[in-house]
Amino acid sequence: MTSKIAAYLRDFAPATPCLVLDVDRVETNYRRLKAALPLARVYYAVKANPGAPILGRLTDLGSSFDAASWEEIQMCLEAGARPENISYGNTIKKVSAIQAAYAAGIRMFAFDSEPELMKLAAHAPGAKVYCRILVENKGAEWPLSRKFGCEMEMARDLMVLARAWGLDPYGISFHVGSQQTTTGAYEVAIARVASIFTDLKQAGINLRMVNLGGGYPVRYRAEVPEIDAFGDAIMGAMTQHFGNDLPEMLVEPGRFMVGDAGVVSAEVVLVSTKAKDDPVRWVYLDIGRFGGLAETEGEAIKYAFRTPHDGTVEGPVTIAGPTCDSTDTLYEKSNYRLPMALEAGDRVELISTGAYVTTYAAQSFNGFKPLAEHYI
Amino acid sequence: MTSKIAAYLRDFAPATPCLVLDVDRVETNYRRLKAALPLARVYYAVKANPGAPILGRLTDLGSSFDAASWEEIQMCLEAGARPENISYGNTIKKVSAIQAAYAAGIRMFAFDSEPELMKLAAHAPGAKVYCRILVENKGAEWPLSRKFGCEMEMARDLMVLARAWGLDPYGISFHVGSQQTTTGAYEVAIARVASIFTDLKQAGINLRMVNLGGGYPVRYRAEVPEIDAFGDAIMGAMTQHFGNDLPEMLVEPGRFMVGDAGVVSAEVVLVSTKAKDDPVRWVYLDIGRFGGLAETEGEAIKYAFRTPHDGTVEGPVTIAGPTCDSTDTLYEKSNYRLPMALEAGDRVELISTGAYVTTYAAQSFNGFKPLAEHYI
Repeated sequence: MTSKIAAYLRDFAPATPCLVLDVDRVETNYRRLKAALPLARVYYAVKANPGAPILGRLTDLGSSFDAASWEEIQMCLEAGARPENISYGNTIKKVSAIQAAYAAGIRMFAFDSEPELMKLAAHAPGAKVYCRILVENKGAEWPLSRKFGCEMEMARDLMVLARAWGLDPYGISFHVGSQQTTTGAYEVAIARVASIFTDLKQAGINLRMVNLGGGYPVRYRAEVPEIDAFGDAIMGAMTQHFGNDLPEMLVEPGRFMVGDAGVVSAEVVLVSTKAKDDPVRWVYLDIGRFGGLAETEGEAIKYAFRTPHDGTVEGPVTIAGPTCDSTDTLYEKSNYRLPMALEAGDRVELISTGAYVTTYAAQSFNGFKPLAEHYI
Repeated sequence: MTSKIAAYLRDFAPATPCLVLDVDRVETNYRRLKAALPLARVYYAVKANPGAPILGRLTDLGSSFDAASWEEIQMCLEAGARPENISYGNTIKKVSAIQAAYAAGIRMFAFDSEPELMKLAAHAPGAKVYCRILVENKGAEWPLSRKFGCEMEMARDLMVLARAWGLDPYGISFHVGSQQTTTGAYEVAIARVASIFTDLKQAGINLRMVNLGGGYPVRYRAEVPEIDAFGDAIMGAMTQHFGNDLPEMLVEPGRFMVGDAGVVSAEVVLVSTKAKDDPVRWVYLDIGRFGGLAETEGEAIKYAFRTPHDGTVEGPVTIAGPTCDSTDTLYEKSNYRLPMALEAGDRVELISTGAYVTTYAAQSFNGFKPLAEHYI
């Protein structure tokens, strides 16, 4: 938690649940990433947190943006971003959304299938397109399965088609999975991309861009490698496979940029047990999986907690949200421990919750409204 | 899908994604339940769908309401419900919410722990309280784990405390899990409740109410028992355990009341494969897990689909939502098959989606707004 956030919470004690996010920390993270990967252009993954003050600050810093929808593109434009600095990175787009984006000047689009490429050829003529390929997500705490991307052979075929259909076959993208804790995942993926570059060169197509995606981790409960380690691994692999002929490099950080800039402040609603002699207490908060903490599904992302009783004796807990839904349980199997003194009415802070929280919040499950947002 | 919904979709083709819900069907379901369990008072579980036209119709029919929050209580009051017909059924409540409910005239509250009972004693003096006990959820497609309820011994102790603290020890509640497909679960639970009644009678406390909870299933892909089968099983067990001295009986149907009254209308955004020879197509819709279909988590609730090509040759599919999140995949392992002719732009209907959809929708994940709602 930054000192600015700590002071804000102390001075204003905003109603819970809420997110307090330090926009200066976003700037720090942007600069750290630029230092670690000076040759890469940064496309902030807007979906991580589309808060207007974040988009505004990043625009001022010269960042580009990776948008998942026409609605996110509009948010970027409203924040002052120029259309040439926005990539429409979702491989699944309605025709109406492609048309709107193209009309607004967007000229870079992702795809991973022939039907999508056909839509782009028809409604975004001449645009730069990049194909997303499937890669291993080993080491990611929020892996991305096979929903996005296609096999390499198909990617090669589609890039040939792209040119034939009047599009600009720009490059290849991949995503190693979010909260990726090993640098090796990038190295394997870069090797695959390089082989597509080589194959397509033989077909007379010179790709010019590698989109390295996101995935760069934030520290939650466990240590993660520093961003410099990812930068070194990526540059090592790029040099190994492309030599002096380095293509343009794009990165799409979301979590890395905003995760540790934010803190969710919540209230303990109840601390109870299920039987007299039960050693495990249930701690119910006024925010849960449907209030924004969606990434606790399967206990994937393990947030760290701060309480007013830190440093006193702790005991095992199950941590849950406030709704009448049992799936609204955050941590039951991850060996969380919280102070024995914790009780209803206490405020607790969830550290590094600036990413993938606000927009996930259910509009009204059990009647609860989404958490408030404070950008400071 | 009711004929009214079919006509509405045909005549108005509302923008997707949206829910179209036939309020007359809600009335039919209310009457079916009353016929199956004439001795039970119906407390509609508002969380299933708090649409104002639903609450209004049920108020007119004489229904009572099970509210999960102060916000849901307000919705019921605004729809014309009287406070004496509203139960505050969440066992996890902020003090401020208890105070607001009590001030509004609410006099029936659930609890399952001593700290919660203490809050009620302090802020809802004299109120009727009922204790929720843990029961088996075997047979439920959306089971409720141990988040709510306490062990029987604790329930007995707490009811004694309730009287000592000036509250009215009213009864016992349980929940056999949502989309419960076996009647036996209710029979086992009723036996447990009856033993608590007996024990407490010896302590001089005469409980007066059994809250049978909800769980009554809706037909999705697979057949489920009729509501009459649940009515028969429950009345058989009640008579067996309570004889002629039947206590008041409450039921809290949510899904049963509104599930088959609603249809989600969606658009196919993309149909693709991951490789040329891949037999499984990915079908991406403009609604997914974060757009309201939260109960597809773990492929728990298996909705049935209607497409414009029904009756033509089908093939295996994975069905996913429109966001850049891989967990936004609905069905990958449940052997769904859809027509080979299905393509982007087609409208599809998800049948019996009137419950647990609208309020779950994320406020803005990936920039997508919650589905529209049409009550007809």
